Amino acid sequence: MKIGKNIAAFLLVLAMSGGYCLAQSPAKVVEDFKPSSVNQPGKEFPQVNSEGRVRVQISAPEAHKVQLDISAVKYDLVKDEKGVWTGESAPQDEGFHYYQLWVDGAAVPDPGSLYFYGASRWGSGIEIPAKDQDFYAVKNVPHGQVIELPYFSKTNNDMRRCFIYTPPGYDKDTNKRYPVLYLQHGGGENETGWASQGHANLIMDNLIAEGKVKSFIIVMDNGTWAMTGPRPADRSAGTWPPKGWADGFMKTLLEDIIPLIDANYRTIADQEHRAMAGLSMGGMQTRVITLAHPEVFSHVGIFSGGSITMEDLANSPAFKEKNKMVFVSYGSRELENTRAGFGGNPKENQDKLKEAGLNTHFYVSPQTAHEWQSWRRGLHEFAPLLFTK
Amino acid sequence: MKIGKNIAAFLLVLAMSGGYCLAQSPAKVVEDFKPSSVNQPGKEFPQVNSEGRVRVQISAPEAHKVQLDISAVKYDLVKDEKGVWTGESAPQDEGFHYYQLWVDGAAVPDPGSLYFYGASRWGSGIEIPAKDQDFYAVKNVPHGQVIELPYFSKTNNDMRRCFIYTPPGYDKDTNKRYPVLYLQHGGGENETGWASQGHANLIMDNLIAEGKVKSFIIVMDNGTWAMTGPRPADRSAGTWPPKGWADGFMKTLLEDIIPLIDANYRTIADQEHRAMAGLSMGGMQTRVITLAHPEVFSHVGIFSGGSITMEDLANSPAFKEKNKMVFVSYGSRELENTRAGFGGNPKENQDKLKEAGLNTHFYVSPQTAHEWQSWRRGLHEFAPLLFTK
Repeated sequence: MKIGKNIAAFLLVLAMSGGYCLAQSPAKVVEDFKPSSVNQPGKEFPQVNSEGRVRVQISAPEAHKVQLDISAVKYDLVKDEKGVWTGESAPQDEGFHYYQLWVDGAAVPDPGSLYFYGASRWGSGIEIPAKDQDFYAVKNVPHGQVIELPYFSKTNNDMRRCFIYTPPGYDKDTNKRYPVLYLQHGGGENETGWASQGHANLIMDNLIAEGKVKSFIIVMDNGTWAMTGPRPADRSAGTWPPKGWADGFMKTLLEDIIPLIDANYRTIADQEHRAMAGLSMGGMQTRVITLAHPEVFSHVGIFSGGSITMEDLANSPAFKEKNKMVFVSYGSRELENTRAGFGGNPKENQDKLKEAGLNTHFYVSPQTAHEWQSWRRGLHEFAPLLFTK
Repeated sequence: MKIGKNIAAFLLVLAMSGGYCLAQSPAKVVEDFKPSSVNQPGKEFPQVNSEGRVRVQISAPEAHKVQLDISAVKYDLVKDEKGVWTGESAPQDEGFHYYQLWVDGAAVPDPGSLYFYGASRWGSGIEIPAKDQDFYAVKNVPHGQVIELPYFSKTNNDMRRCFIYTPPGYDKDTNKRYPVLYLQHGGGENETGWASQGHANLIMDNLIAEGKVKSFIIVMDNGTWAMTGPRPADRSAGTWPPKGWADGFMKTLLEDIIPLIDANYRTIADQEHRAMAGLSMGGMQTRVITLAHPEVFSHVGIFSGGSITMEDLANSPAFKEKNKMVFVSYGSRELENTRAGFGGNPKENQDKLKEAGLNTHFYVSPQTAHEWQSWRRGLHEFAPLLFTK
C-alpha cells in the first residue's frame, strides 16, 4: 500500500496547496447566474450571480487567450471543446459597470450586452442588481418623454443635439410652465448617459408618481463636444481636464442651449426656476459655471465632482446672495481614497457653506465608487430638493 | 551575370503569376479613404474610399486570423509588425450596411463604428456616401423631435416603448392637430431603426423645409416584440415568418399603440388621417393589418415587403372602397432576383390595382438591394403622397 499512501499524501498536499487558491477560484462561485438586465434581446450572456460576479461567454474557436476586463481587472476565460470561452469576475459593487472583452489582444465589446457611451467609446455595460433598484425601475406609472432634438449652435457653427426630459402630462395641459434642470454627464461620456445608464427619466417618473418631487424639465447636452480644447479622443495626449473644459461648454450653454430650450419648451425662464447639476467632469463644470453666473442658476448639484469652497464664495459674492441650494454627493468608496476631495474635503466644505448661511445638502451613496449607482442615487436625493420654495 | 538573369526570370514569373491576383487585390485600391460618417467620435477607422470599399483596422497582436464580414463576404485582414490588422472589402452599394469583424473565430462589433440594431443584434454599421445623401443630411433647418416614450401595454401585460416623431413647430402652436403615420422596421430590427439608420426624422425635416410634404406625426414601435409566436432570437429554430408575426403586432397596434398616441398627442384621430407603412417584414405586416382594418388606415406603404394582389382586394371589399393610396417600392437589385416578388410581381400587382381604380404608386430605388438606402428613398418618395387631399 505504499503507492496508495504516497498518492494520499500527494492528494493531501494538493488539497492544502489548493486551499488558498480555492478561496478565490471559480470552485466557490455561487451557481445562481442569471442574464444581465441590460443584455441584448434573447442573449443568455453576460450573466450575474447573487454575489455580484459577472460571467461572460463567447465563441472563439481559434483564439488562444480570451479575457473579461471589468473594474480595471482582467480575468482569464476557459475554453471548452467546442471553442466557447467562459469565465467570471470577482464580486462587483451594486449598479452599472462598463466592461469589455479581450480576444487575442483585441479589445472588443461583448456581443451579448447592450452598449453605452463611456470611457470615450461605445462599449459593453452590465447591471449588478442593487437592493434599491426599485427607484429607477420601469413601472406602470405615468411616464414622461425623452426627446432627442437636433439644433444649430451659433457658438460652435455646427449642428448639435440634446436630450430633453419632459414630465408626464407635459403635452396634456399646454398652459402649464416648468422649471428646468441642466444635467451634465462625466468625462468620456456624452449626452446619452443620463437617460440611458443613468435612468434620469425613470427616476423622475417614479418620484413624481410618489408625489415626492415637483415636476420639471431636464436638459442633457454634451459637455465635451463644446470644449474649445481637445475632444475626448485627443485627451490622452494632453492634460486632464483639458483646456476649455468648462469655458467652451459655458458659452454653448448660455448662448445656445438655454435660449433654445426657453424658446421651444414651456419653461419658467428665470434664475429661480433654473438649476444645474453634473457628475464628475460635469460637476466640475457645474461649479465653474454656476459660480460665474449666479444670475442664471439658483440650484446647484455636484455629484462626485468636487465642492464649493469658502474661497469660491469670497470670489463670487453674487453666488452667496442669489444661490438657493448647493447639493454635493459622493460614493462612499470615493471618500475612502484621496481622489474624493477634488481639491478639499467635500463634507467640510459643505459644512462651512452652511455656516456661511447657504442651504446645503451632503449625501454619501453606500458601498459605491465613482460609478453610475452613485450618480443615480445622487439625482434621486437631489431632485426632491429642487424648486421647492 | 548568370545569377542576374536568373533573378530577372524569377521576377518575371513572379510578376506574371501575380497578374491575375492584382486584378482583384489591394494593389488596385484607390487610396482616398476617409473615416465613415457613422464612426464613434475621434475614431479613424472604419474608412470608406471613392469606390465604396470599406477599410477596417483593429489591434490584435496575439491573433492569427482577423476578417471583415460585410454583405455576406469575409475579407482577410493583414497584420503589421505592431500587431495591427488592416484590410478592405470589394466596393459596396451606396448607403448603409451592417457588418462585423471576426477575431480568431469570434464574431464581434468593430470598436470603431457606431452600433445599430439589425440581424437581431446591436452591431457595426457603415455608410457609403450616396449621391443623393443630401435628402437625409442634418441641416440647419427647423427640426422636429424624436421622442422615446415608455408605456404599459395591456395586450402584452408588459412595459414597452415607442419612438414618436413630431414635426417642427409641434410645441409652438398647441392648437394644431396632425395626421399620423405608423412606420415599421424589418425582421431582426427594432423600434430604433427608422430614426437611427433610416433617418426618418431628418428626411421629414428636410422635406418640410422644402415645402414638399404635409407635416405629420410618425410612430415607430417594435413589430417583433409583440408577436405571439417566437421572438427574433428564437426564430432560427422555426419557420420564417414565425407564427403570429402579424396578428400579435396587429392587436398591440390597434388596442395599445393607436389609443396611446391619440390620447397623448395632438392627432387627427380618424381613418383619413392615419397611414401605415413598413419595410420587409414591416411591409408584410402593413399589408395584412391594413387589409384587415381598412376602417383604421387610409394610406399604405410597402417597402421591399411584397404588394397587394387582386385576390387581396377581392377578399377585402372595404379596403377597395376606403383606401386612398397604396405605395410599393423596391431596390433595383431586389427586382433582379426571384426574392423580390414576395408572392408576385409587385409592379404588375400595382398596375392591376390602378386599373381596378385604386390610387397607386410604384418606386424603384436605383442600384440598391434589400438595405436601408432603398427604404430611406422609399420613405422620401412616399411621404409627399400622404394626406394630400
